[in-house]
Amino acid sequence: MSDTQSDKHTTAGSVGIVSPQTVHFDQPLMLSCGRALPEHDIVYETYGTLNADKSNAILICHALSGHHHAAGYHSEDDRKPGWWDNCIGPGKPIDTNHFFVLSINNIGGCHGSTGPASINPETGKPWGPDFPTLRCRDWVESQRLMMLHFGISQWAAIVGGSLGGMQAMRWALEHPDELRHCVVIASAMKLSAQNIAFNEIARAAITSDPDFHGGRFLEHGTLPRQGLSLARMIGHVTYLSDDGMKEKFGRDLKAGSLLMGADDGPVEFQVESYLRYQGETFSTAFDANTYLLMTKALDYYDLAREYGDDPIAAFRHATCSFMVMSFTSDWRFAPPRSREIVDALVAANRPVSYAEIEANHGHDAFLMPIPRYLDVFSAYMQRVKEECHAS
Amino acid sequence: MSDTQSDKHTTAGSVGIVSPQTVHFDQPLMLSCGRALPEHDIVYETYGTLNADKSNAILICHALSGHHHAAGYHSEDDRKPGWWDNCIGPGKPIDTNHFFVLSINNIGGCHGSTGPASINPETGKPWGPDFPTLRCRDWVESQRLMMLHFGISQWAAIVGGSLGGMQAMRWALEHPDELRHCVVIASAMKLSAQNIAFNEIARAAITSDPDFHGGRFLEHGTLPRQGLSLARMIGHVTYLSDDGMKEKFGRDLKAGSLLMGADDGPVEFQVESYLRYQGETFSTAFDANTYLLMTKALDYYDLAREYGDDPIAAFRHATCSFMVMSFTSDWRFAPPRSREIVDALVAANRPVSYAEIEANHGHDAFLMPIPRYLDVFSAYMQRVKEECHAS
Repeated sequence: MSDTQSDKHTTAGSVGIVSPQTVHFDQPLMLSCGRALPEHDIVYETYGTLNADKSNAILICHALSGHHHAAGYHSEDDRKPGWWDNCIGPGKPIDTNHFFVLSINNIGGCHGSTGPASINPETGKPWGPDFPTLRCRDWVESQRLMMLHFGISQWAAIVGGSLGGMQAMRWALEHPDELRHCVVIASAMKLSAQNIAFNEIARAAITSDPDFHGGRFLEHGTLPRQGLSLARMIGHVTYLSDDGMKEKFGRDLKAGSLLMGADDGPVEFQVESYLRYQGETFSTAFDANTYLLMTKALDYYDLAREYGDDPIAAFRHATCSFMVMSFTSDWRFAPPRSREIVDALVAANRPVSYAEIEANHGHDAFLMPIPRYLDVFSAYMQRVKEECHAS
Repeated sequence: MSDTQSDKHTTAGSVGIVSPQTVHFDQPLMLSCGRALPEHDIVYETYGTLNADKSNAILICHALSGHHHAAGYHSEDDRKPGWWDNCIGPGKPIDTNHFFVLSINNIGGCHGSTGPASINPETGKPWGPDFPTLRCRDWVESQRLMMLHFGISQWAAIVGGSLGGMQAMRWALEHPDELRHCVVIASAMKLSAQNIAFNEIARAAITSDPDFHGGRFLEHGTLPRQGLSLARMIGHVTYLSDDGMKEKFGRDLKAGSLLMGADDGPVEFQVESYLRYQGETFSTAFDANTYLLMTKALDYYDLAREYGDDPIAAFRHATCSFMVMSFTSDWRFAPPRSREIVDALVAANRPVSYAEIEANHGHDAFLMPIPRYLDVFSAYMQRVKEECHAS
């Protein structure tokens, strides 16, 4: 068994065993809300090797519930690889035989980087609800400190799905000379009212949990488990598609019987049991204040707001090439939202490739090993790779 | 002002002021779960006049959060008409100049008919969680008692949207000789895994509210307001469409500012404020146990289960004519679900008309005054009307 796992961890396509590292920044980081983070830690992982001229660096931006552990395993016994292991590794779209990949946990997160569960040095207590409000651009600036830390002057590519794609686009507008390629997957230039509504319901579930204590649950020695569990269940259902759920669960029962007169106890559908399990697991593993902070950053994001609400004017500030991908059954970041990005890029005369991938996994498709997705992604990254060698 | 309202209430197209009535049934009603309801009340309203041969009676079946008050006003000061006032009244699709319309609150409901908030005669306390589990067919049998009460031997039509359409179809299979037309709007032969998932999240929100007390909240003198509010918010978002919400709310702000550096207090989108208001209003007006019971009846419904899972075989038991309608942007009871009904009816050689109405109101479209919807609905009901006069 341990041999098999060991095989798995060193098999072709895996970056193998990886160890998270931490950098401490002791200078204040000015934030867009006007406040500063007096000091902060960033936890990160890297895969592959930075080449001599540092031209092969890829930055991975994570989404709502993501973190730094994007690929590989943390130990021999680790059964679950990083969240984007399907796309990062030797021979994979983000090919670690050629690229140096940096994956960080964003500030505000809850996986090691400074966030609401960290100790506020001014009070000696967890930040909790006093943690500053963050915008996507704050993550960009924090990621830029990491860039300087590694002495990288230009990313070969910045890559992100969903909220990660929003960060990648913000980079392209804020620091156009510092990336050659921007890969935006299952993302949007701003959320729709429906998206905001789902986020707000998730937040209401968390904040109305009596164990939330106005965000000071850690000081009360408790966790808003029910609220966070509900938030996750809502998120989870909306990240899947109706067809995908039909295929995965249908109307199969976990317990009981729906036959007339049968009395095998309470009826439970497989999908109910699955969702509850997902919610419960998440409710102790994720910080509720991080969830609130991340969903608000999502809601507030509006790529073109400061460019007169004109995405074309916004993208005229970019100088990199773009790759945009979407998935047919993704109804939270639907293909029309990606096509809006592409249309604005085309109108702004920016080079852009676009692929709409047939998939029934909903928004979660960007994490899945869908052959055409991996092929298209690989083909684009091949171009990025060739430019690194040319440069 | 009162003149204006008075005008409104007696205006062409309104059934005017209506008064709910109650019938008490003191015989036990056997239920499909094997238990009996020892006695029960049904609250109802009628609109129009029953003709001499009682051939012009229409039964309205309500959906999840519906009730008996489908049309007209309860008083001169009443600002809001019944929930289906767009479709019921003089000159409207269900034309009260010609039809006698019966609209009841189903058992298990919370608007006057016997339900979980009623007193259990055996304990002297509210039924609460001890109220029997109901299936759609139990509503059919209870509605049938009302039919006998009025001495009606055959409905001109049974009409329902969503869960109401499921009741109408069940009637057509269980008592085929007792209806001439079955009108099924924005409905389905069974829920999808995604539908069940949303219902389960709503139920989890209710049952995890500390004020739920295992369903005995009335005995504790409290209400699971937060849970019911969340359930309503979830339902509400999923009954609207992305496009409809975009049109209604967009990304408009209710409070605060999203401009960089602006600090006008917390940012609140219009859609957030709207949803919270909807949730709060519902949370004191609706019974939490009724919500659980109704959503379970929805989940458990499977039209063809006892017909070898063959909808064609099921519909061969029907003898009435069918009218099926769906709405393009309804993603909880999407047009393909209605087309499945139509296909099965066609294969079973049952007469069926079908209309797919262009509308961006999502599932709620069936309540809206959409011109083509009202026209198509009226045209079909005209046929029903002509048959009444012919008979």
